[in-house]
Amino acid sequence: MKKVIFTGLLFLVTTLLVGAQQRPRELGIEIGVMPTGELNAITDVTGVKVGHTTLIKGDSVRTGVTAILAHGGNIFQQKVPAAVFVGNGFGKLAGSTQITELGNLETPVILTNTLSVPTAMNTVIGYTLNLEGNEQVRSVNAVVGETNDGYLNDIRGRHLTEEDVLMAIKTASETNTEEGNIGAGTGTVAFGYKGGIGTSSRKLPESLGGYTVGVLVQSNYGGVLQINGVQVGEELKNFAFDNQLLNNVDGSCMIIVATDAPLDSRNLERLAKRAFLGLAKTGGIVSNGSGDYIIAFSTAEGVRIPYQIQTPTLKQEIVHNDRMTPLFMAAIEATEEAIINSLFMAETMTANGRTIEQLPVEEILPLFKNRR
Amino acid sequence: MKKVIFTGLLFLVTTLLVGAQQRPRELGIEIGVMPTGELNAITDVTGVKVGHTTLIKGDSVRTGVTAILAHGGNIFQQKVPAAVFVGNGFGKLAGSTQITELGNLETPVILTNTLSVPTAMNTVIGYTLNLEGNEQVRSVNAVVGETNDGYLNDIRGRHLTEEDVLMAIKTASETNTEEGNIGAGTGTVAFGYKGGIGTSSRKLPESLGGYTVGVLVQSNYGGVLQINGVQVGEELKNFAFDNQLLNNVDGSCMIIVATDAPLDSRNLERLAKRAFLGLAKTGGIVSNGSGDYIIAFSTAEGVRIPYQIQTPTLKQEIVHNDRMTPLFMAAIEATEEAIINSLFMAETMTANGRTIEQLPVEEILPLFKNRR
Amino acid sequence: MKKVIFTGLLFLVTTLLVGAQQRPRELGIEIGVMPTGELNAITDVTGVKVGHTTLIKGDSVRTGVTAILAHGGNIFQQKVPAAVFVGNGFGKLAGSTQITELGNLETPVILTNTLSVPTAMNTVIGYTLNLEGNEQVRSVNAVVGETNDGYLNDIRGRHLTEEDVLMAIKTASETNTEEGNIGAGTGTVAFGYKGGIGTSSRKLPESLGGYTVGVLVQSNYGGVLQINGVQVGEELKNFAFDNQLLNNVDGSCMIIVATDAPLDSRNLERLAKRAFLGLAKTGGIVSNGSGDYIIAFSTAEGVRIPYQIQTPTLKQEIVHNDRMTPLFMAAIEATEEAIINSLFMAETMTANGRTIEQLPVEEILPLFKNRR
Amino acid sequence: MKKVIFTGLLFLVTTLLVGAQQRPRELGIEIGVMPTGELNAITDVTGVKVGHTTLIKGDSVRTGVTAILAHGGNIFQQKVPAAVFVGNGFGKLAGSTQITELGNLETPVILTNTLSVPTAMNTVIGYTLNLEGNEQVRSVNAVVGETNDGYLNDIRGRHLTEEDVLMAIKTASETNTEEGNIGAGTGTVAFGYKGGIGTSSRKLPESLGGYTVGVLVQSNYGGVLQINGVQVGEELKNFAFDNQLLNNVDGSCMIIVATDAPLDSRNLERLAKRAFLGLAKTGGIVSNGSGDYIIAFSTAEGVRIPYQIQTPTLKQEIVHNDRMTPLFMAAIEATEEAIINSLFMAETMTANGRTIEQLPVEEILPLFKNRR
Repeated sequence: MKKVIFTGLLFLVTTLLVGAQQRPRELGIEIGVMPTGELNAITDVTGVKVGHTTLIKGDSVRTGVTAILAHGGNIFQQKVPAAVFVGNGFGKLAGSTQITELGNLETPVILTNTLSVPTAMNTVIGYTLNLEGNEQVRSVNAVVGETNDGYLNDIRGRHLTEEDVLMAIKTASETNTEEGNIGAGTGTVAFGYKGGIGTSSRKLPESLGGYTVGVLVQSNYGGVLQINGVQVGEELKNFAFDNQLLNNVDGSCMIIVATDAPLDSRNLERLAKRAFLGLAKTGGIVSNGSGDYIIAFSTAEGVRIPYQIQTPTLKQEIVHNDRMTPLFMAAIEATEEAIINSLFMAETMTANGRTIEQLPVEEILPLFKNRR
Repeated sequence: MKKVIFTGLLFLVTTLLVGAQQRPRELGIEIGVMPTGELNAITDVTGVKVGHTTLIKGDSVRTGVTAILAHGGNIFQQKVPAAVFVGNGFGKLAGSTQITELGNLETPVILTNTLSVPTAMNTVIGYTLNLEGNEQVRSVNAVVGETNDGYLNDIRGRHLTEEDVLMAIKTASETNTEEGNIGAGTGTVAFGYKGGIGTSSRKLPESLGGYTVGVLVQSNYGGVLQINGVQVGEELKNFAFDNQLLNNVDGSCMIIVATDAPLDSRNLERLAKRAFLGLAKTGGIVSNGSGDYIIAFSTAEGVRIPYQIQTPTLKQEIVHNDRMTPLFMAAIEATEEAIINSLFMAETMTANGRTIEQLPVEEILPLFKNRR
Repeated sequence: MKKVIFTGLLFLVTTLLVGAQQRPRELGIEIGVMPTGELNAITDVTGVKVGHTTLIKGDSVRTGVTAILAHGGNIFQQKVPAAVFVGNGFGKLAGSTQITELGNLETPVILTNTLSVPTAMNTVIGYTLNLEGNEQVRSVNAVVGETNDGYLNDIRGRHLTEEDVLMAIKTASETNTEEGNIGAGTGTVAFGYKGGIGTSSRKLPESLGGYTVGVLVQSNYGGVLQINGVQVGEELKNFAFDNQLLNNVDGSCMIIVATDAPLDSRNLERLAKRAFLGLAKTGGIVSNGSGDYIIAFSTAEGVRIPYQIQTPTLKQEIVHNDRMTPLFMAAIEATEEAIINSLFMAETMTANGRTIEQLPVEEILPLFKNRR
Repeated sequence: MKKVIFTGLLFLVTTLLVGAQQRPRELGIEIGVMPTGELNAITDVTGVKVGHTTLIKGDSVRTGVTAILAHGGNIFQQKVPAAVFVGNGFGKLAGSTQITELGNLETPVILTNTLSVPTAMNTVIGYTLNLEGNEQVRSVNAVVGETNDGYLNDIRGRHLTEEDVLMAIKTASETNTEEGNIGAGTGTVAFGYKGGIGTSSRKLPESLGGYTVGVLVQSNYGGVLQINGVQVGEELKNFAFDNQLLNNVDGSCMIIVATDAPLDSRNLERLAKRAFLGLAKTGGIVSNGSGDYIIAFSTAEGVRIPYQIQTPTLKQEIVHNDRMTPLFMAAIEATEEAIINSLFMAETMTANGRTIEQLPVEEILPLFKNRR
C-alpha cells in the first residue's frame, strides 16, 4: 500500500487500484542477459532500505520523497564508500563534492523535487544530529538529488515538509520494491509518458564474484524511447524530434546504484559511469536541461569507514580493477531495466488541468512478440 | 555600522567599538606588487554588491550570513559566467555542479555556517521565485557556501532564519567593505586566531587590460601562518605542527572572486584555481577536514547570458588565453591580502566558555620593520 | 582505393575486393531519426579532411594510421575549439590535458595502435614545426589516440614509421568516406567480429540551426552487440556474457566528433559526452580494459583561435546552452551509426594464425525485416 | 659526477666545477617546520631511484632526461598506486588519463624537454616490453612529463635519443641527490634565473605515522620569487610585473611526489594537489603558458597492484582520510624546498648567444640574516 500524508484540513487523494500495472519482465520483456536478484530491486543488495512519501493533495500537488539507506545502522558513524558521476549537471544535487573528495557517504540519500532540496537537506541534517552517538557531530553532508516535477506538481508552492522527508527515512524497508507514481516519482514525466520510480538488480554468478548490483531511478526525462531495443517512441509517433523541432526532452534522471561488492570510491565512480550507459539504451539523449546524476555506493561491511577511527590505517579487501567488468555490465542492465520498469509501473496522472498518460502497454506489447 | 538581528524576546549583543582595527596596508604591510582598486575590496568590481547579517545572541550564538551579488539586476534573467574550483571538498557547497555544467551563476552567492546551508538555499529560491519577471520560473540553482563556526557558535542549534539570509541579500551594497567578525565570518577561527570576512582587490594597468579582480573570503582554517612572507605562526609559537602532533588545522575557507574582465567559464575556473595559490601563501595547508572552494564570476555586461534568449547564438568578446596571466596574478595577490585582512580586522570573541583571541597585531608589527 | 605502403623488400599484401561490403543504410537499416549529411561521413563537416595509411605486411602486420584534420589550413596558427571526454581512461591518448586547459586543438588528430603513439606524436611535431609560418614554434601539442590491435597485429614490433603517419596526413581529403579495414582500423576487432573505421553524420534542419555533426570511430571493443536496437549479439550467440564468464570485452573505441556549429570548449565537452551514449546503444559495456575517448571540435571559422593574437580579446558568436540539445542528439545518432558502419564495412582478416570473421550480414539481415 | 653522453663525433662539454653550489639549508635557510629525511631528497623514500642524462653539446644543445623509478623491481608487474593533479595543463604530460582511471603507475616516470616526449615514451615502451616477464605485454602506459627548455636549448633539433633516455633509467640509483643543471633541468630557467632539478623530503614523527614524503622538481617557470617568505624577486628587482607588462612568467614545473605511506589513488591525488601549494609559496603564478603537473605515487609494498592477479580482490591497509593532513603539510614543504634547491644548485649557463645567470646567492643571503 502506498503511503500518503494526511495533513490537517487538506483533502487528500490516494492513488488507488495500482495493482493492474505489471513489470515488463512479467510480460515477457527481459532486458539484458544477466540474471536479476530475487526481488529485481535495489533492495536485493543486502542491507539497503528504501522508503517513499507520496504527496498528492487537491488538484495541484503531485510530489514526494524517496529515501535510500545504505544500511540499517548509523550511517554517519559507519560511512560507506561512494562516488558521484555527473551525466549532465543541470541539477541541484547536494553533497556531491564531499562524496568525491572523501570517497564516502554519511547520510541517507534523498530524492525529491527540485525546489524541495533544502527541506530534504535540513531533515537529513536534523535526523543525523539526533541519532544516538552523534551528539557531538557538527558537520553533516546531506545528499539530496532531485528532478523537476513542475509540469504536474505545483512545485513553486514547495509543499513538502520536513515531516514528509523524515517519514520516507523512517519507513524505509529492506523489502521495498514499489515503483511508478510513488515517492519522488509521483509527479514525474518520461518520454512524454508518466514516469516515476523504477528499480532493478543483477546478481553475478559466483564465477564472476557473486555480487549483486541494484539500481533505483527517478525517471523524468526525454528522448526517443527504446524498450529492450524496440523503437517504441517512433512506433507511437511520440518522440523528441520531428525534423523541425525538439519536444519533451528536458527533465532529469536520478540514478542510485548500490552493490555489495567491496569497491573503493574510484571503482564506484566507474560503476556510476556505466549506469549512464544504461540510460542511453532507453533512448535518453541527456538534453541541455536535464540533470542526470548517478550516485553509487558499496554496502560491503569490510569497506565501511568508521567515523571514530581507532587506528591510523584502514584494512580492506577490494575488488581488483580487472574484475570490474561484470559489475559494469550489471549496472548498465539494471539501470536500463529500472527506467523501463518506472514507465510500465506508472499510471496516468492529472493535475493542474494537465494529464500525462501512462505508457500504452497493451498497444506496444505486440512489438515485442518476435523479439528476444 | 554592523547589522544585528532583533528577534522577539531574545537578548541581543552587538559588537561595539570595532573601529580600532586597522587593515595591514594601513599599517605599512603591502602584500604583492600590483596596485589595489579604490576600496581594496570585492566591491571595486563594478556592480558587485555585498551584504552581511551578523547574529550574536546570548552566550552561544555567533554566526551570520554574507551575500555577494554579481550585479544589481535580476541575476536569474541575466546570468553571469562563473566557475568553481574545489580546493578540498570536505564542505557542503550547494550549486556547484550546475555552475560547472552550464558555466553560469543565476543567484546571489550566500556564505553561512555549515548547518545553515539549507536555510540559505531555501531563502535564495524564494527570493528568486519572487523577483519580478520570474513568475514562471520552476528551477533555481541556489549557490551557498559555508565554513564551520561550531567552536564559537552553537551550530547544532541552527539559529539562522530565512529572514536573516534575506536581510543580507536585501541590504547588500556596492560600497560594502566590512571585514572581520561580520556576516558569515562572525564565528570563524583561522590559524588559532579569530578569523572572519576579508576582502581585497587588484586593478591592472591599461596595458594589461585595465581590469579589476576582487576577492572576498570567509577565513576559518589553519596551518603555519605567514603574513606577506613573514613566518608569523612560528614567531608566535602558534602553528599546526609541534613535531609530535598537528593542531588547529581543520576548518575551511570560502573564496569568492569577481572580475569585470570578460571571461568565459573555462578561464574563470583557471582564475579560481589561482586564488587557491593565494591561500597557500598565507600558510594554509588545506587539511583533510577543510572545505576550500573558490567561486569565480565575471560581471562584464558583454558576457551576460540572458534567460530568455532571442537568438540561438550569443555574441561575446572574451579575453584570450594568452592575456590571462595578469588576471591570474591579481587573483593570487587579492586572495592572500583578503585573508590577511580578515585576520587583522577580526576581534577577540568569547562564547560557550571559549575565547578566541584576535591576532596580536602590536606584537607582530616589529617583524615587518625591515621588510618590503 | 585503399592506400598501402610499399617499403623496400617487404612483401606487401593489399586488401582487395572490398567493394562487396555495404553500409547498413544501403541495406535498409536506418539508425536514428535525424537525416544524415550528404556523404554520411565526418567529411560532411565543411573543411574536415580524413586520410588513412594501411599497413598490411606478410603474415603478422595488420595496422595503420588515420588522420583527421579540422581544416585545410595551418591548424597551429588557426586553432579550433576542442574538448575531450574520457569514457574509460585505460588508454594512451596524447594531448588531452592541454586540450582541456586551453580549450583548443592545434594539430591533426591521429589514430593508430597503442604502441605507435610516440611515432605518431613525433611525426605530428615534425609536421607542425615544418609548416610555413611555424619557424619559431617550440611547443606542439600532438593529439594521438589509439586502440590495441595486438590480436591480429604484431603490435610489439612497432612497424609503423613516421613516413606512414605523414602519408595519412598528407593524403587526407575532404571527401574521404573509407571504412572498415583501413587506417587505424586495419587490425581492430569489435564484439568478436572484425571492427575498423566507421563514419557517419547528421544534418540538423534550419529550424534547429542547420548545423552538421560528423563522427569517425576506430572500433575495437566488446559487449552485447545491438544494431539499431536488434539484439544481434544474442541472436548470433556471440556476446560478452555466458553466465559464468565474460569474453571478448576488452579493447577500446576512439571517437572523433566534428561540427560546424560554433561551440566553445565547454559545450564541445558536453557534445563529446553524448557520443559516449551512442557507443552504449551498440551494446558496448566500456569494460575495465577499454580505452574509450571522445575528442570533439568545432570547425566554425568564427570561433577559431589565432596563435598570433592582434587584440587582447576574441570576438565570437557561440551557440547558447539552450540550443545544444539537437546537436547532442545528432552526436548520439552519428556515433551509433559510425560504429555499426565500421562493422558492416570491415572484412574477415587473418594474421598470426588467427582469423577474425566479418559480421555475418546475410545471416542477420532477416532480423531487421519487420523493424523500422 | 654528472653523466654526459658521448655520441660519435660530436664534441661534448661536461659541466665541471659544480661543487661550489650549496643548498639553502646548508646556508642556514630552513624552509618549513618539519624535519627532512636523511638525504633531504626524493630518494629518502625507500626504493625510489633517480637517474639523469645530461646532454650538453656545442653551442646550442642544453637538455636532458630525468628518470624516477618507484621501485627497483619490474614496475609493470608490480604497479604502484598513483595520481596526477593538473595545476595548469599547457603541457604534454603523457600517460595521465590511465593513471587517473586505474589509479596506478606501471613504468618509470620520465622528465625531459617538450619536444622529446615521444622519444622518451618510445624508450619507456621498449624498456618495458623487454623486461623479463613482460614477453606477452602488448600495452604500456608510458608516463613522460616535460618543460620547455627552448630558450637555452635548440629544442626544435630534438637532439635526445632513445639511448639517452634509456641511460637515465639504467643508471638510476637509490642514493641520487643531484640537483641543478642536470638531466631534464639542464636547460631550464626559473624566475629569470637558471632553474633545474631540485629535490627535498620530509620525515614525519612516529606519532604522525613516521612516513617519508619526497619531492623532485624540474623548475622552469616564473612569477615573483619568494624564498622562505623573503621577497627575493622584489629585492633583486627581477620579477614578473613592472606595472605595465609581465615578463618571464611562462615555462612550466613538473613535480614528482613519492611517499612510503600506504595511500590509495584518491588520497594521492589530494597529496599531489598540496604540492601545488608548495609551488605557490615560491612565488609561482602558474601563468597561462605554464604546464604544471604533479604526479604522486606510493611505494608502500602493501598497496602494490600485481599485473597477474591471483585473487579477484586485493587486500590492503591504507591511511585513513583523517590522518592525511601531516602528509599534506610534508608535501607542501618538500615541494617548496625542492624548487628553491633547484635555484641554489643551478649555475649560470650560456647557449645560443644567450646567458641565464644563476641566482646571486651571495647577494641575497643577507636578506635572511634576521629571519627564522
